[in-house]
Amino acid sequence: MAKLLRVDMSEARVAIQELPQYLKGLGGRGLCSALIYHEVDPLCNPIGANNKLVFAPGLLAGTNCANSGRISVGSKSPLTCTIKEANAGGQAAGHLGRIGIAGIVLEGAAQSGRLFKLYVSPKKAELLPADELKGLSNYQTVELLKGQYGEKVSFITIGQAGEYLLSAASVAISDREQRPTRHAGRGGLGAVMGSKGLKAIIVDPGEAKSAPIVDEAKFKEAAKRFAKALQDHPVTSQGLTNYGTAILINIINEAGALPTRNFSSGRFELAERVSGESLNEITTKRKGNCSHGCMTGCIIRCSGDYMDENGAYFSKWPEYETIWAWGPNCGIGDLDAIAKIDRICDDIGVDTIEMGNAIAVAMEAGIKQFGDIEGAIELIEEVGKGTPLGRILGSGAGVVGKVFGVKRVPVVKNQALPAYDPRSIKGMGVTYATSTMGADHTAGYAVGANILKVGGYVDPFAVEGQVDLSRGLQIATAAIDSAGLCLFVAFPMLDIPDALQAVVEMLEAKAGVSMGGEGFQELGKKVLKMEREFNLKAGFGPPHDRLPEFFKLEKLPPHDSVFDIPDEELDKVFNFV
Amino acid sequence: MAKLLRVDMSEARVAIQELPQYLKGLGGRGLCSALIYHEVDPLCNPIGANNKLVFAPGLLAGTNCANSGRISVGSKSPLTCTIKEANAGGQAAGHLGRIGIAGIVLEGAAQSGRLFKLYVSPKKAELLPADELKGLSNYQTVELLKGQYGEKVSFITIGQAGEYLLSAASVAISDREQRPTRHAGRGGLGAVMGSKGLKAIIVDPGEAKSAPIVDEAKFKEAAKRFAKALQDHPVTSQGLTNYGTAILINIINEAGALPTRNFSSGRFELAERVSGESLNEITTKRKGNCSHGCMTGCIIRCSGDYMDENGAYFSKWPEYETIWAWGPNCGIGDLDAIAKIDRICDDIGVDTIEMGNAIAVAMEAGIKQFGDIEGAIELIEEVGKGTPLGRILGSGAGVVGKVFGVKRVPVVKNQALPAYDPRSIKGMGVTYATSTMGADHTAGYAVGANILKVGGYVDPFAVEGQVDLSRGLQIATAAIDSAGLCLFVAFPMLDIPDALQAVVEMLEAKAGVSMGGEGFQELGKKVLKMEREFNLKAGFGPPHDRLPEFFKLEKLPPHDSVFDIPDEELDKVFNFV
Repeated sequence: MAKLLRVDMSEARVAIQELPQYLKGLGGRGLCSALIYHEVDPLCNPIGANNKLVFAPGLLAGTNCANSGRISVGSKSPLTCTIKEANAGGQAAGHLGRIGIAGIVLEGAAQSGRLFKLYVSPKKAELLPADELKGLSNYQTVELLKGQYGEKVSFITIGQAGEYLLSAASVAISDREQRPTRHAGRGGLGAVMGSKGLKAIIVDPGEAKSAPIVDEAKFKEAAKRFAKALQDHPVTSQGLTNYGTAILINIINEAGALPTRNFSSGRFELAERVSGESLNEITTKRKGNCSHGCMTGCIIRCSGDYMDENGAYFSKWPEYETIWAWGPNCGIGDLDAIAKIDRICDDIGVDTIEMGNAIAVAMEAGIKQFGDIEGAIELIEEVGKGTPLGRILGSGAGVVGKVFGVKRVPVVKNQALPAYDPRSIKGMGVTYATSTMGADHTAGYAVGANILKVGGYVDPFAVEGQVDLSRGLQIATAAIDSAGLCLFVAFPMLDIPDALQAVVEMLEAKAGVSMGGEGFQELGKKVLKMEREFNLKAGFGPPHDRLPEFFKLEKLPPHDSVFDIPDEELDKVFNFV
Repeated sequence: MAKLLRVDMSEARVAIQELPQYLKGLGGRGLCSALIYHEVDPLCNPIGANNKLVFAPGLLAGTNCANSGRISVGSKSPLTCTIKEANAGGQAAGHLGRIGIAGIVLEGAAQSGRLFKLYVSPKKAELLPADELKGLSNYQTVELLKGQYGEKVSFITIGQAGEYLLSAASVAISDREQRPTRHAGRGGLGAVMGSKGLKAIIVDPGEAKSAPIVDEAKFKEAAKRFAKALQDHPVTSQGLTNYGTAILINIINEAGALPTRNFSSGRFELAERVSGESLNEITTKRKGNCSHGCMTGCIIRCSGDYMDENGAYFSKWPEYETIWAWGPNCGIGDLDAIAKIDRICDDIGVDTIEMGNAIAVAMEAGIKQFGDIEGAIELIEEVGKGTPLGRILGSGAGVVGKVFGVKRVPVVKNQALPAYDPRSIKGMGVTYATSTMGADHTAGYAVGANILKVGGYVDPFAVEGQVDLSRGLQIATAAIDSAGLCLFVAFPMLDIPDALQAVVEMLEAKAGVSMGGEGFQELGKKVLKMEREFNLKAGFGPPHDRLPEFFKLEKLPPHDSVFDIPDEELDKVFNFV
């Protein structure tokens, strides 16, 4: 049975323990949320010593199940003040799964000003002073650690933003090339890590080969069927593989739901220039790789190598959300500029969705003009420097709106909205409003049924059907996030019945339990219930499950749509609790 | 019957109307809160067109009842996002009462960038363009308006902070000398006024002599008894009259409850230098007036003239809260400096409590050192300039804490705490935690019973009795604020039974109704119930009725006390709702 690694930052002590009863059978998001639910005061200060920060690989981590290497990071969020789980790809989850660690829990806080690093291997776990890493960016930190720990380890780090305790600070996870390009971005969990005084975790898998599996034969057979489903579905074998998540730019722009210039329009006249097709074209022209997996065992490979004008590797492919946040939402139609900003965000350690929104709101306030590339770069660099303006921006879109008196501020529970306007994809509006996480597209990705016609079809402009759609997706997602699977597996899982069956069988085979499709659902519900309960105790109930007023009042071009799902309908999302 | 003046800022139209049924019998805070409760969506954007801003004189305004000239300003607060009423002295309420206006309601919002002024007299009400006032401070604005409207009018204005829509922006009310020294400070109502595009209200009483009174003889007799009670009670005839509210500095310091250097101690080693006694001494030495009333009919006269080193008038006496905020809380022991900062705050138009806390939190973050006078002045001047740092500070202590990652941030519902540490005056802690207004000492001034032994005695360190004390005070205060009486009349009202009786009789005589002491209580309860109900709909319930975590965890020197009133006790405050 995998173990829990408790790290008492106040006393600089580590301890390995058995999983407490209430964490048994849980992994990834489920383990994070259960731990926070059971052990953290919902009214604690998110950057205080009483908050905890959890890193948990999913239930299938460290196996040869395809795309099973997402790592969940959980805490009470300094951005939303709700419970929070943000997950990312990269290598760390697979390594932790192989070592047999179900979760790392940071408790307490180091003395102010002190900085530590945590080394974890099959043989030992130790907390070491790391004051020499102070003020370093993610790339600088990882470069230094690589020299010390070699090329087989993975890193979990924070940049300057995390040290500054900014609410947009992310937690970076290194990819197969040990680059800090995968981020548990949302909710400011990098600030929680910073508040504990932990700069980096080094996960060294050593000789550990695979997480233990009770019924290996059953697992192997199911894993094969699951991989086949991923290879059979067009989204996970062609669309994402060739164009990355940016394939959505043209699709969502065509749907009139691509938020442009701080959510003032649903169409961006320069969308084509920042589309997945353009990304593929520019990469091919510069002789870069268009299909790159961020973790061992990924067969979707939605990432790619963004090459500079001289054909040298510059950064990972910016994702759809990132391209949108800095592109359409800031009025910028230039992929080179977006890749540059994305790399700076990875380096400083900030969530690109929150930051892009923050700067779009600042542009609306007149700090810079929409479309001003140099201006946007200047602003993001302020964040890294920690100037007053940089700190405002790094505190997220909500704070920017408050400080500069902007009326159109797209946040729910103070978390900025992702790249789908809820007025023209109303299922997403329901998810944004009601998710336990604040505005989060990954919490219940209604774009599938509203736009892509994956897993059925619900008219994106209709009122009817959106709540049921979002609820079902939120439950399924909580289970997928607990398994540690990349969310993109949901596309085949929604369309190919055997894909879900295969996942269930892998979970059963690994733990030696019986679960069934019903059990998978129950897992999702159990996780959501705990998250909801925590939020209620933290003071977040139905009045907070709402979109900002302007989505109901301002019509979105080109469809002149408004968000009109009644409040009473929104309040039915959690009717299973 | 007094009328309602509705001002549609979107259409630049004014209309006089009868009071709607739900506002009848209400004035001041009661009228403000009832209007917001009945007409404003609790989830609206506080700086959006759907919020409303109300100015209401109390029920006794415009009569010869002593100290009846408080003006209530009500809205949904941009600082707390709860309902909000802030009241102030000065001349405007008396003038409005005489004119027969029960309330001015600002609705909608002017086109962005446009600025207006509202002129109100017994003959007309008109909204006029006032773009020439753009960017002016309160003193500059008033100076310019005096030239246009003469010396008999009163002004309600905002400074730059209100135009910037900052959450610490106040609404300034001119005093008897037409100086903008009286502020409805709390909750950022100046930002709401700014968001509407209104820079100034000019209230011209013209020939209007007195508000109509149904039973003049009864009123006159009761008013006389009430005035006598004020003259008989030592607090309202000696303490406040000679030393101002600053008489509390030595008292609260002695009690070990004077929050020092951002609530890290309850004693300030330089308290004596900034005490009421020192204020009297320095003023006497410089040949200033130590007893100045801010409104016609004030017989307490807690204010005074702060003279500069050459004996020239410099500013009004800074109040206890202001002296504390910039003195002990910022580690500054210099009255000249505090008076200077106070005048800047009046001029820019910001709440001194919120700003003093904001800068103390910034000092804790290391932006300036505690005790740095020039540094504090520099910071407050940044607010007036609207620099990024100034905007952070002007957004209040909560935002400063968030942006700079400070862990000790003394706010409830995002409103900064006043000058009584809740660990050593626990009754105040109950009021801070549960008030419908966020942390607000005036909402239920338990210092009376906890420290001054006015209206009984409850041990300030005891757990028992504080909830009942705070509840009773919160109810009585809501009624007093509705009458438009200066809250200091509560001292005699708590100790001299005839003082309450006289107030009830004046209210009865003025309106020609029968009310009784019971009716006065019911008025208070009715107002509180509406405010509470609004807040629940806005998403504020029991989990928000809590002090920040550090008050429970960090012991306050010199008594090493913590705030230990159980949450379940706090939840009993509203058991009458």
